[in-house]
Amino acid sequence: MKTALECMPCFLRQTLYAARLSTSSIALQKEIMNSVSAILPELDFNISPPHNSIRVYSEIAALSGCTDPFAALKKVSNDFAMVLSTEARKTIGQAEDPLFSAIVFSIAGNIIDYGSQQHFDADKAVKECLSKKLTINDYALLKNDIEKAESILYLGDNAGEIVFDGLVIEQLDKKVVFAVKEGPIINDALREDAIACGLDTKCSVISNGTQCPGTPLDDCSEEFLDYFNSADIIISKGQGNFETLSELNRPIYFLLTVKCPIVGNHITELSGKEVKTGDMVLMKSSPQGLKENGKSSQTR
Amino acid sequence: MKTALECMPCFLRQTLYAARLSTSSIALQKEIMNSVSAILPELDFNISPPHNSIRVYSEIAALSGCTDPFAALKKVSNDFAMVLSTEARKTIGQAEDPLFSAIVFSIAGNIIDYGSQQHFDADKAVKECLSKKLTINDYALLKNDIEKAESILYLGDNAGEIVFDGLVIEQLDKKVVFAVKEGPIINDALREDAIACGLDTKCSVISNGTQCPGTPLDDCSEEFLDYFNSADIIISKGQGNFETLSELNRPIYFLLTVKCPIVGNHITELSGKEVKTGDMVLMKSSPQGLKENGKSSQTR
Repeated sequence: MKTALECMPCFLRQTLYAARLSTSSIALQKEIMNSVSAILPELDFNISPPHNSIRVYSEIAALSGCTDPFAALKKVSNDFAMVLSTEARKTIGQAEDPLFSAIVFSIAGNIIDYGSQQHFDADKAVKECLSKKLTINDYALLKNDIEKAESILYLGDNAGEIVFDGLVIEQLDKKVVFAVKEGPIINDALREDAIACGLDTKCSVISNGTQCPGTPLDDCSEEFLDYFNSADIIISKGQGNFETLSELNRPIYFLLTVKCPIVGNHITELSGKEVKTGDMVLMKSSPQGLKENGKSSQTR
Repeated sequence: MKTALECMPCFLRQTLYAARLSTSSIALQKEIMNSVSAILPELDFNISPPHNSIRVYSEIAALSGCTDPFAALKKVSNDFAMVLSTEARKTIGQAEDPLFSAIVFSIAGNIIDYGSQQHFDADKAVKECLSKKLTINDYALLKNDIEKAESILYLGDNAGEIVFDGLVIEQLDKKVVFAVKEGPIINDALREDAIACGLDTKCSVISNGTQCPGTPLDDCSEEFLDYFNSADIIISKGQGNFETLSELNRPIYFLLTVKCPIVGNHITELSGKEVKTGDMVLMKSSPQGLKENGKSSQTR
């Protein structure tokens, strides 16, 4: 998915949020806003928004000197999700199809995202999501592919929600490799979050080698690409991973809660189904849609 | 009210909307976004957002060559409000206090604003507003001041909603001068809109001499300032007029629907009452609040 003009004000909105977490100096916050405003015209509109956000967030970090402004929020998210998980695991265990139930929790958990949604009640948001139906539901395909698969690569998204990814992995009974980000970027889960949330006790944890809130293959490590290219299926969580991988010809299942209308429109283009902000999606990657559109910005 | 850091992404969001109304060329839309991004750091944070928006919108017009991108939307708003007004006038006539009823219609009509709210159902929005109570209600003070007043200056806001201002003026039974903007700016009412909505048959219509979505006194015409300084009371409609006049020591009554959290916070500061986006306000200007805050950015 390519960067849209709508992403420019959104980057600036995100910048203000990150700047305020990074420094209490109003003068420095303003300097950061000015610097990011000035680099917006230099963004590459042929790459995805998360890929461009590397430049935006590194500018913020360079000016503020704060390399991980979301550290405290990530810890809060991890702790909050760990508390919820006991109840969630019980619900999943009693469900008719525990794997599907775990997946729904995991997609609902994707609402825990301080990057795209700032002021919200995470507990209320997750509960609201759990009461909704999936707008796109390729679960039957996923279940079938999981049964045949020997290796599964699972791309994590945010701190906190990875607890629910752990509940999915508990149900998979397969060799799973879980990928986090190499360095701090917004509230994306790092190795330390995976450990805090017990993921390392359920599967292997690797990094994708980037400090990007997504999976820009051009920048990923060789180790990660080996897993990416050899996995029988890839489970991709969240908007950032979707945005960077949406036009790729690999057996990817995208699990996400839609948080922006541009992502919603792109899913609508690919799936032919109307998808709006707030919708929950479990969608198999569609090389057909890709072929029809005749574009493939980030394949390698 | 001074410009906030939050205004920077908002200006860029507004720019995209205006650019798309101004030209169908994606390349030109992008050029406009880039140009406005580049001038954001040059904005003056000691003046109000509407005052700064003069620069933003003149940049858009200069690049696109389109001087009135909201022309069609203004016409739609005028026509829509004229249709609603017959029913509204009937409701007002049957009300216990017709003046108060007309004022509530006029504040609800302030929701017709394609500048700050883009995709909305105006009919539904107005009806929702009519079902709400005023969050701040200085009507008793206003009614008392109107009774004593000989001259009233009424500052118009957007095309469409001025129809409802006409319904208020019908109830006033006083010498009223109605001020519009001199040149096209967003969807603000011009003289031609006042005529299309019949305001010229109910009162004198003048221009404030600016092409600003508000009333920045430093830029207003001498004619307008004579009325502004001599009027017994001033009725000020909408956010833009409020933002430019909020800290002034004049008998101003602000009638508006709050459309942005920064304006809501500023009203909260001045009034001591919690005001949020979507709230309807009828508030007398508060030189007390001004004195306590010790600031007065735009008095002259």
